[in-house]
Amino acid sequence: MAGNSFGKLFNLTTYGESHGPALGGVIDGCPPGVKLDLDEIQNELNRRKPGQSAIVTQRKEPDTVKFYSGIFEGVTTGTSIGFVIENTNQKSHDYSHIKDSYRPSHADYTYDKKYGIRDYRGGGRSSARETACRVVAGAIAKQMLKGIEITAYVSGVGTMRLEKLYSELNLAKAEENIVRCPDEAMASKMEDYIKEVRSKGDTVGGIVSCVIKNVPVGLGEPVFDKLHAELGKAMLSINAVKGFEYGSGFHGSTMYGSDHNDAFNTDGSTKTNYSGGVQGGISNGMDIYFNVAFKPVATLIQEYETIDKEGKVVKMHGKGRHDPCVVPRAVPIVEAMAALVIADFHLINKIYS
Amino acid sequence: MAGNSFGKLFNLTTYGESHGPALGGVIDGCPPGVKLDLDEIQNELNRRKPGQSAIVTQRKEPDTVKFYSGIFEGVTTGTSIGFVIENTNQKSHDYSHIKDSYRPSHADYTYDKKYGIRDYRGGGRSSARETACRVVAGAIAKQMLKGIEITAYVSGVGTMRLEKLYSELNLAKAEENIVRCPDEAMASKMEDYIKEVRSKGDTVGGIVSCVIKNVPVGLGEPVFDKLHAELGKAMLSINAVKGFEYGSGFHGSTMYGSDHNDAFNTDGSTKTNYSGGVQGGISNGMDIYFNVAFKPVATLIQEYETIDKEGKVVKMHGKGRHDPCVVPRAVPIVEAMAALVIADFHLINKIYS
Amino acid sequence: MAGNSFGKLFNLTTYGESHGPALGGVIDGCPPGVKLDLDEIQNELNRRKPGQSAIVTQRKEPDTVKFYSGIFEGVTTGTSIGFVIENTNQKSHDYSHIKDSYRPSHADYTYDKKYGIRDYRGGGRSSARETACRVVAGAIAKQMLKGIEITAYVSGVGTMRLEKLYSELNLAKAEENIVRCPDEAMASKMEDYIKEVRSKGDTVGGIVSCVIKNVPVGLGEPVFDKLHAELGKAMLSINAVKGFEYGSGFHGSTMYGSDHNDAFNTDGSTKTNYSGGVQGGISNGMDIYFNVAFKPVATLIQEYETIDKEGKVVKMHGKGRHDPCVVPRAVPIVEAMAALVIADFHLINKIYS
Amino acid sequence: MAGNSFGKLFNLTTYGESHGPALGGVIDGCPPGVKLDLDEIQNELNRRKPGQSAIVTQRKEPDTVKFYSGIFEGVTTGTSIGFVIENTNQKSHDYSHIKDSYRPSHADYTYDKKYGIRDYRGGGRSSARETACRVVAGAIAKQMLKGIEITAYVSGVGTMRLEKLYSELNLAKAEENIVRCPDEAMASKMEDYIKEVRSKGDTVGGIVSCVIKNVPVGLGEPVFDKLHAELGKAMLSINAVKGFEYGSGFHGSTMYGSDHNDAFNTDGSTKTNYSGGVQGGISNGMDIYFNVAFKPVATLIQEYETIDKEGKVVKMHGKGRHDPCVVPRAVPIVEAMAALVIADFHLINKIYS
Repeated sequence: MAGNSFGKLFNLTTYGESHGPALGGVIDGCPPGVKLDLDEIQNELNRRKPGQSAIVTQRKEPDTVKFYSGIFEGVTTGTSIGFVIENTNQKSHDYSHIKDSYRPSHADYTYDKKYGIRDYRGGGRSSARETACRVVAGAIAKQMLKGIEITAYVSGVGTMRLEKLYSELNLAKAEENIVRCPDEAMASKMEDYIKEVRSKGDTVGGIVSCVIKNVPVGLGEPVFDKLHAELGKAMLSINAVKGFEYGSGFHGSTMYGSDHNDAFNTDGSTKTNYSGGVQGGISNGMDIYFNVAFKPVATLIQEYETIDKEGKVVKMHGKGRHDPCVVPRAVPIVEAMAALVIADFHLINKIYS
Repeated sequence: MAGNSFGKLFNLTTYGESHGPALGGVIDGCPPGVKLDLDEIQNELNRRKPGQSAIVTQRKEPDTVKFYSGIFEGVTTGTSIGFVIENTNQKSHDYSHIKDSYRPSHADYTYDKKYGIRDYRGGGRSSARETACRVVAGAIAKQMLKGIEITAYVSGVGTMRLEKLYSELNLAKAEENIVRCPDEAMASKMEDYIKEVRSKGDTVGGIVSCVIKNVPVGLGEPVFDKLHAELGKAMLSINAVKGFEYGSGFHGSTMYGSDHNDAFNTDGSTKTNYSGGVQGGISNGMDIYFNVAFKPVATLIQEYETIDKEGKVVKMHGKGRHDPCVVPRAVPIVEAMAALVIADFHLINKIYS
Repeated sequence: MAGNSFGKLFNLTTYGESHGPALGGVIDGCPPGVKLDLDEIQNELNRRKPGQSAIVTQRKEPDTVKFYSGIFEGVTTGTSIGFVIENTNQKSHDYSHIKDSYRPSHADYTYDKKYGIRDYRGGGRSSARETACRVVAGAIAKQMLKGIEITAYVSGVGTMRLEKLYSELNLAKAEENIVRCPDEAMASKMEDYIKEVRSKGDTVGGIVSCVIKNVPVGLGEPVFDKLHAELGKAMLSINAVKGFEYGSGFHGSTMYGSDHNDAFNTDGSTKTNYSGGVQGGISNGMDIYFNVAFKPVATLIQEYETIDKEGKVVKMHGKGRHDPCVVPRAVPIVEAMAALVIADFHLINKIYS
Repeated sequence: MAGNSFGKLFNLTTYGESHGPALGGVIDGCPPGVKLDLDEIQNELNRRKPGQSAIVTQRKEPDTVKFYSGIFEGVTTGTSIGFVIENTNQKSHDYSHIKDSYRPSHADYTYDKKYGIRDYRGGGRSSARETACRVVAGAIAKQMLKGIEITAYVSGVGTMRLEKLYSELNLAKAEENIVRCPDEAMASKMEDYIKEVRSKGDTVGGIVSCVIKNVPVGLGEPVFDKLHAELGKAMLSINAVKGFEYGSGFHGSTMYGSDHNDAFNTDGSTKTNYSGGVQGGISNGMDIYFNVAFKPVATLIQEYETIDKEGKVVKMHGKGRHDPCVVPRAVPIVEAMAALVIADFHLINKIYS
């Protein structure tokens, strides 16, 4: 109820603060007999980890995952999978400057008001470090969902937008550059832009797009638990996300029905795919695609005024190791959350087959 | 698990097909002692009901709600609240033309593939008639949340957009016209436009915006069950919704952190509100505001080609009583779902107080 | 959370007070394609209904169930099943004598203290009338579980005990007498005894035993959600139940391991069945059997002293139409709850198959 | 859904096999601001741990718990609490003798049939080692529930029964002997008896009783989630439990209503307490008391015949380090599970206050 769990049948529960000894989680509901490639799980973590490139936070964390249960001789046993990721680089430096102050657009103020107490060393549970656990679970979900391809990529940084639809892009190229944008020219421009923003101590927002291919027909429940509603919740639960749209999205709200309707081919596929692979909350076998909007990171390496617990104005200066733009590192997180949603519905759907 | 329930502590479970004898639901978790104005609940239903104006479907349904339990002498007792809305106007006409065919961008195809069976008389559970039950529960939630104001309105129809922010509008005016747009001039244009679209047998999409005022600080859970993530899921679970954004939304992804950060006033409020009233997944006491994108209704009063169960191409002609644009009737539904989300977190929060 | 729901995948939510207009419920998660014999559902209700024999309460209620959704042309569609049972015989007589007083061993006192308000006309939700809804859902579960036989019967009334094990009895005979004890001679004695107790305005407790045959191996989850733990919760949730034991039960606590262990036959069945069909929380394919202890009904047709809301001693006299011994009518309720538990695990298990 | 979680608002999720590297869990929903005595938590673990006395298994495990999150400067922060207990003494000896064979009355057979795979080194998740995690969570729940006293003790070993009611005993004495029976003379007899049973390589069952004092009025939900139903499920989820009864229990089924009803005192307390502190599923402020029946441990240090995976008869000889009677070590587990149930309802109840 305190909301550290995600998923009904393929369920992840996480714990861990950014500056505590470790993060970790439990995956409950992974069926037995799934052969796991543990290196592949670590690879996914590496895609998310800090310090991986010149345009992300330089905090150094190996983010090595250790599994404690639920896997025997490389295969899931159907019992709960416990795992731990140690924090190795939580600097024990002085936090007194943030202990009693509220950084703007962070969770400092809301945490204090809600809980009356907070682990002030770096954001606690509101730190995006928590998403490392999601990536572990998502990597397992991906391996369970063999054949279904989930690919996210950066399609926007600041006002720069990749206008091409996913179908016009070679998505595999996204992993070839540090921005994770599949268009090389655009990736290069985005990289320069992020570096420029960082040099000013500023940050900038962006867009991650995601495509899911080979989803069988029938995933999703028709009323509250629509497939795209769960995807939306999953994405909006990622730090810094401000919006979600799938298929025709916000643009679809401007269209006529006569243009928007997806006419059928005789095999049940559709000629167009404004529906984004979901009709009535249930997958129709076409590609699922969606966009996720990320706001600019709130931590600036600049001086600014804010208030302390007593409401007095104080001067602060952002320090620490932060991302000038989160979207490159958000790509594997978006994929992981998508994998968790699909995994959950995949299991629910077995009841109907 | 089959997804006919919403909410953890303030929980709604619904049932009913558009062409069956009745719709209904159970609200479990409403605390005892809430004085209910039953007329006000019926008023909310009337705002959603078909046939209310010239620009909505002309199906005539009184949508009268009957309560069977959980209310005693006008006050909730803390036990589950059962209610029923009878369908009085389900025409027993001939459905053979849609029985074996799949209407484009409807749920016909996905239902058949998922369940192997469907109530083909009018959409079954995928009909937006189901949302009447949400409006009932939302109306009760609103009354429980006395003091919190939840107001939705139409801010877009097709390409027409109300560019003013909610704070520049007199939202009370939205209920004074049949479009439910608080700007009279725009409302008038939108009305004409919807009529024109309908006269062609076509449909068009739109945007519903919503503002929630007087939310106490502290609603929402910091990790998966962020306040805006649950709002997003709630909105995306409404029929025809394609996108959700809150606060700065998609536009926020283009901004710099130095512009986007909401500086504090000394009382804990913020000078700007790009955060949309939520920081780190938890309400900060500022207004919560968000946009919901609706696609054009799929049912056209036009002839079109589609396929039947055998994959043969068939000609169909849309008939029946449908909305040319859903957003005017979606307004109370958006409010109801917002109320359910806020009610749920309101109850969860009592644990911390 | 307010606890009016049971089951995770095969889920029942109920509502309704004993003296309100109706009871009802929603079954969510019943798979599509289950052919339902509606008469059989009504038969189960008739087994539970008041007024069915000389040894039960004489309140006259037809207990006719009406289905509003989820069933189309006699077959479940996979959508939620809404149903209603009207109260036709809630006498509108004077309740002022119990309105402000607390009957001993009823829920009057605890309700008032918990909720601060109660529907004082006959017990509200604490009335066993609520179990009619369970019987409806259980009857549907039974039909879904074709091949699995769930049979309950009365094995004890007061100090009278049927010492024979279920395997020595012809359980079909239980339905041939109004006590629902499969041993004719014992049934006759029990009937006389119940009549004698009633003639004194008193009540007496009893035992219901239940056997479940043909359960496939593998139902139940190994840690918290053990099959017998869910059965236990299900039984203990029935009004007036004070104890639950399965397999060797309380007697098993006196045994040696060398006597209690169930040696295997070569086909995986066991020579003895002290395990009661469950090992490590998971069904092993042997018969599941258990006992449920019911206390004597608290309503006596006698004068007694109790207290009112102010703590003053008041004299009351039980009236109304009550059961001298609940076990004959509890038999179908025990079966229904067992069916709900088995149905839930049956669906969960599809994930592993 | 795979059942490794317990509790709705105060939620525990566990993982870990008896022979893997570690056990652990996550507690989600513990409110912020609970001051924790970590030594006291370790003390509870020590009461459960193997090797603590001459009448329990001699496996040596320090069972040291490490907390990774959710506690800051000795106080809970309201975020999820992750913890780990390392297995230090999982012998890497030869398991080939049990790998392909099914020990009678163990979970070997049911696991293999359900999952098609199992960690055959010592029982996996079906090992009672899993309950160490419950004790950790229960110890935290106890500290949150300051003022409520939860005390369990051994009241039966084999056919030996402590006939005195809890109110006639000095329960504090239970911890003064290794059997955990509060009657010294009986404890001594039980100890001798357990030693004698062990000397024969046999095992024996027993009874744990539990009393909960100072429970406020109002805990428990009136329909499915009755307080005693959740207690029953909690107890039945402990390894080797075969039965649960509360208040008058099975004996209550033999009584007359005129004897069983608990007459009120003018302060709302009752003169007798056959109800066991719960009326209509809700606590009434009187002591809650119940009995839990444990079967004899299935592992015997004797030779016996059983079958292997192919159904061939094989000879096995129990070895390893097992308990001749589980009840002494079950005492803290019963308390822990009771604490989890009370904690959950305690939080739910805040919604009504």
